[in-house]
Amino acid sequence: MAHAILLISCPDQRGITAAVTGFVYENNGNIVHADQHIDGQTNTFFMRIEWDLEGFRLGKDDIQSAFQAIASRYQMDWKIYFTDQKTRVAVFVSRHLHCLQDLLFRYQQGQFSCDLKMIISNHQDARTMAEQFGIPFHVIPVTPENKTAQESQEIKLLNDNQVDLIVLARYHQILSKSFVDAFSARIINIHHSFLPAFKGRQPYQQAYGKGVKIIGATSHFVVEQLDAGPIIEQDTVRVSHRDSLEDFILKGEDLEKAVLSRTLRLALGHKILCFANKTVIFD
Amino acid sequence: MAHAILLISCPDQRGITAAVTGFVYENNGNIVHADQHIDGQTNTFFMRIEWDLEGFRLGKDDIQSAFQAIASRYQMDWKIYFTDQKTRVAVFVSRHLHCLQDLLFRYQQGQFSCDLKMIISNHQDARTMAEQFGIPFHVIPVTPENKTAQESQEIKLLNDNQVDLIVLARYHQILSKSFVDAFSARIINIHHSFLPAFKGRQPYQQAYGKGVKIIGATSHFVVEQLDAGPIIEQDTVRVSHRDSLEDFILKGEDLEKAVLSRTLRLALGHKILCFANKTVIFD
Amino acid sequence: MAHAILLISCPDQRGITAAVTGFVYENNGNIVHADQHIDGQTNTFFMRIEWDLEGFRLGKDDIQSAFQAIASRYQMDWKIYFTDQKTRVAVFVSRHLHCLQDLLFRYQQGQFSCDLKMIISNHQDARTMAEQFGIPFHVIPVTPENKTAQESQEIKLLNDNQVDLIVLARYHQILSKSFVDAFSARIINIHHSFLPAFKGRQPYQQAYGKGVKIIGATSHFVVEQLDAGPIIEQDTVRVSHRDSLEDFILKGEDLEKAVLSRTLRLALGHKILCFANKTVIFD
Amino acid sequence: MAHAILLISCPDQRGITAAVTGFVYENNGNIVHADQHIDGQTNTFFMRIEWDLEGFRLGKDDIQSAFQAIASRYQMDWKIYFTDQKTRVAVFVSRHLHCLQDLLFRYQQGQFSCDLKMIISNHQDARTMAEQFGIPFHVIPVTPENKTAQESQEIKLLNDNQVDLIVLARYHQILSKSFVDAFSARIINIHHSFLPAFKGRQPYQQAYGKGVKIIGATSHFVVEQLDAGPIIEQDTVRVSHRDSLEDFILKGEDLEKAVLSRTLRLALGHKILCFANKTVIFD
Repeated sequence: MAHAILLISCPDQRGITAAVTGFVYENNGNIVHADQHIDGQTNTFFMRIEWDLEGFRLGKDDIQSAFQAIASRYQMDWKIYFTDQKTRVAVFVSRHLHCLQDLLFRYQQGQFSCDLKMIISNHQDARTMAEQFGIPFHVIPVTPENKTAQESQEIKLLNDNQVDLIVLARYHQILSKSFVDAFSARIINIHHSFLPAFKGRQPYQQAYGKGVKIIGATSHFVVEQLDAGPIIEQDTVRVSHRDSLEDFILKGEDLEKAVLSRTLRLALGHKILCFANKTVIFD
Repeated sequence: MAHAILLISCPDQRGITAAVTGFVYENNGNIVHADQHIDGQTNTFFMRIEWDLEGFRLGKDDIQSAFQAIASRYQMDWKIYFTDQKTRVAVFVSRHLHCLQDLLFRYQQGQFSCDLKMIISNHQDARTMAEQFGIPFHVIPVTPENKTAQESQEIKLLNDNQVDLIVLARYHQILSKSFVDAFSARIINIHHSFLPAFKGRQPYQQAYGKGVKIIGATSHFVVEQLDAGPIIEQDTVRVSHRDSLEDFILKGEDLEKAVLSRTLRLALGHKILCFANKTVIFD
Repeated sequence: MAHAILLISCPDQRGITAAVTGFVYENNGNIVHADQHIDGQTNTFFMRIEWDLEGFRLGKDDIQSAFQAIASRYQMDWKIYFTDQKTRVAVFVSRHLHCLQDLLFRYQQGQFSCDLKMIISNHQDARTMAEQFGIPFHVIPVTPENKTAQESQEIKLLNDNQVDLIVLARYHQILSKSFVDAFSARIINIHHSFLPAFKGRQPYQQAYGKGVKIIGATSHFVVEQLDAGPIIEQDTVRVSHRDSLEDFILKGEDLEKAVLSRTLRLALGHKILCFANKTVIFD
Repeated sequence: MAHAILLISCPDQRGITAAVTGFVYENNGNIVHADQHIDGQTNTFFMRIEWDLEGFRLGKDDIQSAFQAIASRYQMDWKIYFTDQKTRVAVFVSRHLHCLQDLLFRYQQGQFSCDLKMIISNHQDARTMAEQFGIPFHVIPVTPENKTAQESQEIKLLNDNQVDLIVLARYHQILSKSFVDAFSARIINIHHSFLPAFKGRQPYQQAYGKGVKIIGATSHFVVEQLDAGPIIEQDTVRVSHRDSLEDFILKGEDLEKAVLSRTLRLALGHKILCFANKTVIFD
């Protein structure tokens, strides 16, 4: 049976939790997860609540309108998701295929509850892999000259397929402001450094040149400013002077895969809330 | 202003969260933390809820009786704590003083919101340290012959000082069943291995002999069976063939301190619930 | 140009390092790596030395006989490897394919400098994957009744293909003593727990039942006694009460892949020495 | 019996290791550790070799002159240390005393083989602690006006006591270029962030504001440019949205202590070599 998931943020005040959990209970819902957080600095309330729809008195459309009364009272930003409506995902990739390969195998194994609609690339390299896993593959090369036109084509493809979430799995093109605005808070990127250190190009080379003893990987929502969006997940691994640049890359690529797959699971579980250029992760 | 903290476990059913949060809201409480968990295997519901008593309509004693109605309805195991009533703690130690020293310095810095009533040891080694930090120190040597009598003296000391929580900070005596029963789920031990590996004596020697590549430390509640109680917190660190037994100990002692201090903060924050020889940690 | 790699162990005494490095230098070798270790408990000397054969005065066969003089003087156990002679590897797998898939993709990417000769399984599950990556696949089902005969067939296959190294990538059959003896110190297993905790069957279930806060994976050489051989590499990851058994498995499988691939790279680089049921890792 | 430790760096060429180990062997030395590294990018050779002076044919002064012949042949940068000549250390601290306290307790326990000559501070806060552990304590307040004069006094104090190594254990003053030059590669700082992220003031506040999911600590040699010297050691710990700024600090301070104490042990063991604004760590 499907579950409903509510994601809420609003100014904190007395009674919000009681109102939300009361709403679920009075309509005969069985709460299976509930987690809340209060940001002390901004006095903001965040909540994720998930309940079983078995025996629930309201249909999906009725939930929306019925909950709006509570939402208005507490000035909530809110969204509702249903676990039987799978998120439609597009993956963008360039020529480094390790993240894509990892995502595809996990998808095949059933680790991601989503509908992987397409892979978009500015190169041909991923074609064989896409075909092996049976995912539609679109090559859309991008140059400074054709960027606007090609992005329009991408946006049309994404909208025609009702794509909800875009995953940049080592896609080495900077998306324009208008593209980012069209999918606000719905584009996830994996950056191969411990942000905010080593933004931009060739972070492994930067880290190797600096002589750090730990390297990292970071997933974040894409915003207009490069590698500066809200951080979702990070991980690190030790390196030493014995590690060559190739070793940095080998170790780092393993981090990238782990961080990106954890991030996608969080996103598909509707466990991420953005606020003030940070994230709340209901894990 | 003080907060109230409720710890609850009961069979899961519809409406528990709504009932508990409704209780707080109807009495004008402001929830500052709420976290719940459902154990799918046993269908058990767990909750920790903390609210600000500023403006709350019920006094401390009235809360207890008023909440009992809800508790009975849902067959709850429950306890309530108030943050202005500090937990009274006793630390037991033998001859390895690193954990004690770490606890005392953190206590002095204000990291532990508790009242450290006494240090009990079967040796004189910790006396100088106890005096330096101004904590009452009792030496109670234990032999197989006098164990029962000495434990009785310890229990009397603990009860006379209304000690709520006992921390074994490398206390190398096995407590009798009757002692453990007298402080059930209120004795925390730090064991210098990654349990359940390397129980009992000389775990660093055992780990060194086995040639493991990672060592650990584990905090747990003390039960009658040696090193087998519910695990609260664990941590690990890498070792290699280059590490001597002395290096294992040096690295491991740092783990012990970190794990024990985190555990004590969890315990003092009333964030630990035991069930089925496991723990739920509301961190 | 190829490199030579010497792995040495012997009783420690003055002059060993000088003798070995002198041998390389006098024959015009350029040392690119050298690492040594002395085990204080047993007074044993270990060394791995790697040099560029460009301009070296001795041919491969001559190195062997020339070095024997030094080896005899110091009672050395020693082996020499040449980087242009690729290790021939066989992978054994049952029905959990995540480790195999990870190995195959890394192999395809060029992360493993070896010749992957075959995949052997007691089930059909891995066939598609093996074919996708173009690796010969042999199904050899094992029952208590046919075990001796089937193992003989496996040994013949391995010997016919001059296999140097066997990787058990979640192969759920216990190898007989005679099989293990036939490939002594040349069979690597990945066990899905933090050994020596949770040996044997269903380690994730064991860990979940125990309520540990950290789980692990361990690679080791296979010896006759189950899951008790010299440990090569281990890693751990945090879990909490919120993790179901399925989450334990999901997190643990990522550990297994990481530990096994690191182990295979160590083995192929001839960086592992066994002694006294432990390993020296020249990383 | 004392050991000798040689630290060497020079352009790589054939024969260096053989020459150095031959020197030790011909003079009847017993090598207890030897480790070398070649930096492929700059073709630089690094070596640390340690041998037992029991039975060695050369006295300490004779070693220096005898080895100079080899050093000149290979254009070596080199230093020799003897383990019976303890490093003389000064600790600088301001008002955050957790690192100092940790260092002092470990020093008392015998974890640091050094002679702790003095604590210098620009504040009175550490006085009690210094007295408790019996270490000379000097308060030298620094303002923009008196900085040059006060640093001269500090340098005189350090030189009068023949201090070899300066540890900045949360000393919140920027040292002048002339001070840094006077103790080049002999001043170690602990910075409370994962460098190069969050340089300068209030790194915990910076990290909290950025919403990172992992925080770190970094030890490095002090150079003129702020927080930019060669990195010696780093470590990280996970944080989440649930961690307040105070939690960041609490977790981070534990990292600082661990990283600084490991760094000091490396430095006292003469296991650190600087080159090209990086470090080689012979651990």
